[in-house]
Amino acid sequence: MKAARPGDNFDAIDTPALVLDLDAFERNLQRMADALRGSKVRLRPHAKCHKTPEIALRQIALGAAGICCQKVSEAAVFVKAGIQDVLVTNEVMGEAKLRQLAELSRIARIGVLADHPLQVQALAAAAASHGVVFDVYVEVDVGAGRCGAAPGEEAARLARLVVASPPLRFMGLQCYHGPAQHRRSPQERAEAIASAVEAARTTRALIESWGIPVERVTGAGTGTFAHERDSGVFNEIQPGSYVFMDRDYGDNQRGAEDVVFEHALFVRTAVMSRATPARAVVDAGLKASSVDSGMPTVWQRPDLRYVKASDEHGVLATPDEQSLALGDRLMLVPGHCDPTVNLYDEMICVRRGRVEAVWPIAARGALL
Amino acid sequence: MKAARPGDNFDAIDTPALVLDLDAFERNLQRMADALRGSKVRLRPHAKCHKTPEIALRQIALGAAGICCQKVSEAAVFVKAGIQDVLVTNEVMGEAKLRQLAELSRIARIGVLADHPLQVQALAAAAASHGVVFDVYVEVDVGAGRCGAAPGEEAARLARLVVASPPLRFMGLQCYHGPAQHRRSPQERAEAIASAVEAARTTRALIESWGIPVERVTGAGTGTFAHERDSGVFNEIQPGSYVFMDRDYGDNQRGAEDVVFEHALFVRTAVMSRATPARAVVDAGLKASSVDSGMPTVWQRPDLRYVKASDEHGVLATPDEQSLALGDRLMLVPGHCDPTVNLYDEMICVRRGRVEAVWPIAARGALL
Repeated sequence: MKAARPGDNFDAIDTPALVLDLDAFERNLQRMADALRGSKVRLRPHAKCHKTPEIALRQIALGAAGICCQKVSEAAVFVKAGIQDVLVTNEVMGEAKLRQLAELSRIARIGVLADHPLQVQALAAAAASHGVVFDVYVEVDVGAGRCGAAPGEEAARLARLVVASPPLRFMGLQCYHGPAQHRRSPQERAEAIASAVEAARTTRALIESWGIPVERVTGAGTGTFAHERDSGVFNEIQPGSYVFMDRDYGDNQRGAEDVVFEHALFVRTAVMSRATPARAVVDAGLKASSVDSGMPTVWQRPDLRYVKASDEHGVLATPDEQSLALGDRLMLVPGHCDPTVNLYDEMICVRRGRVEAVWPIAARGALL
Repeated sequence: MKAARPGDNFDAIDTPALVLDLDAFERNLQRMADALRGSKVRLRPHAKCHKTPEIALRQIALGAAGICCQKVSEAAVFVKAGIQDVLVTNEVMGEAKLRQLAELSRIARIGVLADHPLQVQALAAAAASHGVVFDVYVEVDVGAGRCGAAPGEEAARLARLVVASPPLRFMGLQCYHGPAQHRRSPQERAEAIASAVEAARTTRALIESWGIPVERVTGAGTGTFAHERDSGVFNEIQPGSYVFMDRDYGDNQRGAEDVVFEHALFVRTAVMSRATPARAVVDAGLKASSVDSGMPTVWQRPDLRYVKASDEHGVLATPDEQSLALGDRLMLVPGHCDPTVNLYDEMICVRRGRVEAVWPIAARGALL
């Protein structure tokens, strides 16, 4: 069973299905390119968000320097699709993964992170044994409290170790502040990134004081990238969600200078039960729209509220019997785009009431 | 890239991977069969939980009457794998899905639910136009507040409509109380099901008083099935999670007579970052272990706490530096088994330190 085929009418899409509004999507791509024009900051969008080669190729065509992936198996999908420059923004452990990383680096430029001396040793050993070179970035914990060496001395020592470990090539610093992306007020986001920028700046200065060039300082996401762009320290940004937007990003209060992106990704769903006037049940539950960042909203229907998700059911609160009928179709804005995309094999791309294309989400489920 | 192949050592499984402990799994299957022996209640386990034909076939071999699915596309996978009797425990809307349902009912016995007269009309029209018969169950809202006609008069009228709508075959009542499964105390669960049983009993009595036989009263899940089994009203149960168990079911307080099932499903994960003595980061985040019902726990490591999941990272709180090293492997007990299974293409089946089999999760992503 397929939800849709190219040429189908929009109304014929079976449900639930993941739908991309191509016009909104293309405007989002263009707005990000515009936002970087004239700056010395380049775009390396995160592909963990879309997992879709067709999207990565469009990002590259609009000027992106390469892409980010989060997993080696994800990178493999994009390299196979012709992407020439992939940064795995993650620490990579284990022989099988390092072997795969080495194989990819024969075809494309491959970068990877380290936040511990043992990783550097393992990366160097793998690169030497496979006769390849890895670009290595030291990950710095600039406030996220997840991976990353401490800013300053600890990160700088790691950079020195990378430099002393051929065939590794020390490229620079990964400085991503994840939690800052969804701080609701513009001021909270600005403050978090000001602090991250300071951590990146002092770490870079220390490394450079040891005579080691720091070619790249990279990081940032959709919620904060304008701050990193204007920091004078970052020279590459890694936003992912701007292509789609989701309810969680939509909930951020917008600052005066924030670039406006549109919701372009939706879950098409149908009403399958209408047991009482106060309740409708749609066929998209948490296996169709990930609820890790909260419930989806119902697009352009402020009278309807998606209140509860079970595996295959979504319960909507409805004002009255007339508001929704059995079989009615709705569009949901997912709470979080990344894990929602990861639930689907295909993205149904629509424009002017027609299915224009169906894109394989080729890196869906790429976990290794 | 594959996480493992049959014959591999357990230690060689790449991460993250979905791992099934075959001994524990087989004991769970056997305990459910034992729990029904001597009763007149038959088992129709829910396959939405495992989505794996290899498991459904073992359930049938141990005496299950058929299986439940939640989606038509899911049912299609199991019918293709040779399952002869599938109940779609859901309302099904739309021409494409009804056509597929009709096609399946040429190969297998197919049941489906209704909670509204329009569904009955559509089912009857589809069955007539395709020349097939559907088993139809009236879904009764016995307390879950999701789908289902109101108990008593409303549900009974719907049953009468099904009887009056050849080629539909009225089979009985679907009476599933989802939220009761995870009420924490045995008494809360007992009370919820006592009320559900009463709703089922009165509805059945009313329908029978109109001269309509009610062959089947079906429902129940892993958390409450012993109550439905002993109710004298239900004659079929639909548990799914008992084959795996998950953290959420593990959190239920056990009653004196509850059947004990074991955790059999795990996410194998590795430590990829160890930035501070108080924190380790593993390579299984929310794309590897669904967090809709809360965080996973770390199996047999009460000193470690999985405190935060982002897409591809899991943050563990660790008591000290010695507790965990970079590269160490752990087993997570997922918060919720159903959507976790749905993230993987394969289940790595292990026994005595060896990968015995790799089962395709063939209905993974079957959303339509």
